[in-house]
Amino acid sequence: MKTPAALAALALALAARADEGMWTFNAFPGDLVQQRHGFKPDARWLETARLASVRLAQGCSASFVSASGLVMTNHHCAHECVAQLSTPERDYVKHGFLAKAAADELRCPELEVNQLEAITDVTAQVQRATAGKEGAAFADALKAEKARLEQACQASDALRCEVVTLFHGGRHDLYRYRRFQDVRLAFAPELAIAFFGGDPDNFMFPRFALDVAFLRVYQDGKPTATPAHLRWSPAGARDGELTFVAGNPGSTSRELTVAQLAYQRDVRLPSSLMDSLEVRGQLTEYARRGAEQARHSQDLRFYLENGIKANKGMLAALRDDAFFQRKVADEAAFREALVRDPELARTALPALDAVARAQQILRRMRPRLRYQEWGQGFAGTLFEHARALVRGGEERRKPSGERLEEYADAALPALTQRLFAEAPVYPELERFRLAGSLTRLREDLGVDDAFVKKVLGQEAPEEAAARLVDGTRLADPKERRRLWEGGAAAVAEAAKTDPMLALAVAVDPDGRAVRRAYEDEVEAVVRKAGEALADARRRIHGTSGYPDATFSPRLSFGRVAGLVEDGRPVPPFTTLGGAFARATGREPFALPPSWLEAKGRLDLATPFNLATTNDIIGGNSGSPVFNQRLEVVGLVFDGNIWSLGGDYGYDPALNRAVAVDSRAILAALDRIYDARRLVKELEGSGARPKAGR
Amino acid sequence: MKTPAALAALALALAARADEGMWTFNAFPGDLVQQRHGFKPDARWLETARLASVRLAQGCSASFVSASGLVMTNHHCAHECVAQLSTPERDYVKHGFLAKAAADELRCPELEVNQLEAITDVTAQVQRATAGKEGAAFADALKAEKARLEQACQASDALRCEVVTLFHGGRHDLYRYRRFQDVRLAFAPELAIAFFGGDPDNFMFPRFALDVAFLRVYQDGKPTATPAHLRWSPAGARDGELTFVAGNPGSTSRELTVAQLAYQRDVRLPSSLMDSLEVRGQLTEYARRGAEQARHSQDLRFYLENGIKANKGMLAALRDDAFFQRKVADEAAFREALVRDPELARTALPALDAVARAQQILRRMRPRLRYQEWGQGFAGTLFEHARALVRGGEERRKPSGERLEEYADAALPALTQRLFAEAPVYPELERFRLAGSLTRLREDLGVDDAFVKKVLGQEAPEEAAARLVDGTRLADPKERRRLWEGGAAAVAEAAKTDPMLALAVAVDPDGRAVRRAYEDEVEAVVRKAGEALADARRRIHGTSGYPDATFSPRLSFGRVAGLVEDGRPVPPFTTLGGAFARATGREPFALPPSWLEAKGRLDLATPFNLATTNDIIGGNSGSPVFNQRLEVVGLVFDGNIWSLGGDYGYDPALNRAVAVDSRAILAALDRIYDARRLVKELEGSGARPKAGR
Repeated sequence: MKTPAALAALALALAARADEGMWTFNAFPGDLVQQRHGFKPDARWLETARLASVRLAQGCSASFVSASGLVMTNHHCAHECVAQLSTPERDYVKHGFLAKAAADELRCPELEVNQLEAITDVTAQVQRATAGKEGAAFADALKAEKARLEQACQASDALRCEVVTLFHGGRHDLYRYRRFQDVRLAFAPELAIAFFGGDPDNFMFPRFALDVAFLRVYQDGKPTATPAHLRWSPAGARDGELTFVAGNPGSTSRELTVAQLAYQRDVRLPSSLMDSLEVRGQLTEYARRGAEQARHSQDLRFYLENGIKANKGMLAALRDDAFFQRKVADEAAFREALVRDPELARTALPALDAVARAQQILRRMRPRLRYQEWGQGFAGTLFEHARALVRGGEERRKPSGERLEEYADAALPALTQRLFAEAPVYPELERFRLAGSLTRLREDLGVDDAFVKKVLGQEAPEEAAARLVDGTRLADPKERRRLWEGGAAAVAEAAKTDPMLALAVAVDPDGRAVRRAYEDEVEAVVRKAGEALADARRRIHGTSGYPDATFSPRLSFGRVAGLVEDGRPVPPFTTLGGAFARATGREPFALPPSWLEAKGRLDLATPFNLATTNDIIGGNSGSPVFNQRLEVVGLVFDGNIWSLGGDYGYDPALNRAVAVDSRAILAALDRIYDARRLVKELEGSGARPKAGR
Repeated sequence: MKTPAALAALALALAARADEGMWTFNAFPGDLVQQRHGFKPDARWLETARLASVRLAQGCSASFVSASGLVMTNHHCAHECVAQLSTPERDYVKHGFLAKAAADELRCPELEVNQLEAITDVTAQVQRATAGKEGAAFADALKAEKARLEQACQASDALRCEVVTLFHGGRHDLYRYRRFQDVRLAFAPELAIAFFGGDPDNFMFPRFALDVAFLRVYQDGKPTATPAHLRWSPAGARDGELTFVAGNPGSTSRELTVAQLAYQRDVRLPSSLMDSLEVRGQLTEYARRGAEQARHSQDLRFYLENGIKANKGMLAALRDDAFFQRKVADEAAFREALVRDPELARTALPALDAVARAQQILRRMRPRLRYQEWGQGFAGTLFEHARALVRGGEERRKPSGERLEEYADAALPALTQRLFAEAPVYPELERFRLAGSLTRLREDLGVDDAFVKKVLGQEAPEEAAARLVDGTRLADPKERRRLWEGGAAAVAEAAKTDPMLALAVAVDPDGRAVRRAYEDEVEAVVRKAGEALADARRRIHGTSGYPDATFSPRLSFGRVAGLVEDGRPVPPFTTLGGAFARATGREPFALPPSWLEAKGRLDLATPFNLATTNDIIGGNSGSPVFNQRLEVVGLVFDGNIWSLGGDYGYDPALNRAVAVDSRAILAALDRIYDARRLVKELEGSGARPKAGR
């Protein structure tokens, strides 16, 4: 029998074996990496990694891979841009896109690239501003202080400053990004190979997908100089080799209390899945109306399917009794530790209970939050624009710190970029989505509900949707710009004759009311409790570890590694030849003509996709995988099916990041797409090839 | 403060106030009704009630309301027949149907009416046959004994004998029904008024729907004489009046253990909802392809929507923490009682644990059960026919007691009625449903799964669906009859060239394997445990109460009663005038032209729908509501939203049955539909009107 001391040592050894963690750049555990992998990144290394890896503000990651602003990301991160640039005559989604010359690079209507320049700890300022406050007062003080800090930091529109709240309220850091809004498309392969295997293969490994796109950031009409960038490794990585992934994991829930996890398991995930599945059913049929309808809805369908599969995986993790009971046991042990410490019993114990009570409130509040504030009854871009205009007019009359946070000065450049974008609006799709969501609004709140009556009157959902979409002028970016610039008065005047604006005006008080209740009774409670809980964890566990993901830059370390799945070993690399073997000629397993034609020119043994133990999550899509010499060896585009449970906890045996191998990217550019300009640019930035592949 | 004795008395009083219970006709608590409502049904009264109320074998309830075989049920119970009799030229769903003369009554292709003639307790025989057996041996012995009992009882095809297992294995009764397979449609109103308020109003009260249809049973081409029938009460019922409901509640889960309830809450209900919602999304769009597509899919859409709303309500009940914790506490108390009794500790305690273990097995087994055996990857009637033919050929070679139970001799008349029915098959709808379900099969089991590969090969789901539906000859009832009569040899020969039959042959072993595992490891375990648990409950609680619903005839008592909902009193009756007030002219709140035209001829104060405390559940649709004089005062067509939680427990304050008032039915037949023949027949059978309305 093992002694307690031996067990403790074993636990430490196990912990030290795990490549877990989405670390912030200002608290990266270099010593741990040294201990586990024999390499310690220094400050200069970390700075280059931070500046070379960027965020796509719309929800992805990317990296600079040349000195001339060349950005590597996933096809699925650039997909919306590719779709927006497409027309019935030139469908870049289907046929791919290559800018033969620099002048052929096309501007993406809505993409924004953020490069993290500096991090400042502002915890003390925030805690001073909120000290002794509760509920609404706490929420107001927190918002005002964050807006003040962001505003003070944001010297120009070329900067984007965000106070990032870590440890659910335990720490606040001010992140200053350089913002690039002129982003152009340089290369995208055909969707058929970018998303080979489609939804069936999504979140799976082994895998065979060229999910890559190249963009370029411009300033003043010229490519931006990006001296801090990753070089290209044509040699790629070996099995077991140390790998880093820098990116922007969107959100994890590893620090959540059991009450919060139960809310996820019992309410959020099932309810969101039910909605998404019905919408998927409708959109699948919508896409069958014709080629254009299929093209217009493609992006939406991708995100929907992706979300469905991700949510199913997360729900499965939470429904795993053994897993959930471990969370319950952990919290019970934590609670016992709190009880034993008089100071923590006074601060953290009530915090834990307050979080639980807030979840009960949230459960009751959720239906109205979804429909009155989150806009889930008003699907489509037109209502989104209408709300931005109505609220933008109102909010900009107030000081920045008193506004709804998405209208604070620091947030406006991103908001207006989207609002003024020339991206096409598809009226048929808008009517379709709006009618579907109005039907769900009526179903969930009930036909006799006052809010439902306010929205629908005596109209059927289809009728209301047609009236709103056909009657609005907001599909025109010039009209949106005019109203934004005209402010509240212009919006109020236009709302007299624009039914979508009129709807946004009518439902605004309902949205604000439930949001206010949410912010005061749920969000503020959880944030305030977060301070006490983070502090308690530090006192009990001795270290704070890494914080839950917050769609801000993080760095993870790991290694190239296969896994054993149902007793079967899965090797870490696939090959180009594997894609040809898997192809059936039928969607989503149909290779594009360019690949079939180029087959003879390819070395089929070239590594295509690879798996690593890096700890990632949604938002990491587009993250570079690089070695200790800061050379790109891959491009993260997914996690395997076990990584979905990673939202709640990392399992070193099964959790894998899935990436495109740098060698496959180069081979495809060179042998299939004849993209010599890019190949030269990448190789020019590259290290000399090492021995062996 | 109340003493424990006072509290106990209070509890008793509360229990005695509840009109809970779906009682079997051979164990009806006459004394309880006497004590609560001052009326005790005698044996003759109970016999008339039993013979006058019938079952629609496809899943509804009904009653004889004249001496000439006239059957009253819900429109939604007859809807499939109305749809099957419709063509593009004469759409009876939309325009309604009235047989002006007896000769105009049209035969329903698939309806079967069952009248319960006798009940025999066969518990001793069944327990003798299964004594000392476990798992597969128990399952086999149980099946063989049930088949033997049914076969011995079933002297002719005009009889239908079923061993009904009550208390989840605690009791077995042999039910002998008279079977009527020549069922004709006499009257159906327009869907617009039968289902006024549509899905939004479904499971709601107040309510305004004429959900009624009249059928007639024939024998040898003539209306059947039905001396035992309910008379018509033109006077209707008063608020608070004692009411009886006889019908066939399909299934309740009130006796389930906590482990079984958790399976419902965490697995069955969410998973079933997710599927149904996606299918609803697809079908909604399918129906928009055109008027015919809408008509063909209407019935399916209704059942889907109805199921979605019901499952949402049931899930909400189980997700109600207070409710679930009560179930947990009840079981903990039961467990304690078991522990205290040495005999029960030996029998019932392990039974409780065995049920819990079986649920874990079921959780793991469920995906394969659904796709390999329950046919959820092969939606549509054509695969259903193919499987019936393939299995029918195989199974009929064995003695009845060794067959899959749906192929036992006693079950064959109902099976062949459906198999040989002339009901139309819609190829476009079949392809559509099949493609959708094959897609879900592939998604849920995974593209690399051996069963998926067996089904799809390299085909895309749409491709496979088109090949299967376009290539099969099973849409022709003559072909189905030929193959059924030809047996296994004919089927094997046809399967060489009929792809749907070939599919059914190919997947049959997979289905049988997982079903066998389910029957042995889950069903048999639960049934066997059911004996011990039912026995323990009787010993501890002194009485067995009423058994969970099993789609067999039950009788409930109650009274006309409104309710208080969110602090607002809801009166027990609505009026015809209320329907006109609620109408918006838009689906589903559009009254049909016949009503708008007849408005001036109607007494708008006529009671339209009513609520009673009778304990009902799905399957009770079409049940008569009658008074102590055996007079029809209403027709159950729904329960209110709180009745959905009734699956797990009856709440006397909120749980209500929703019925059409007999006065509204008569007024509509008389003043709107000019159905004098039926009015005369109903009034002829009726009691003399009493004072008042």
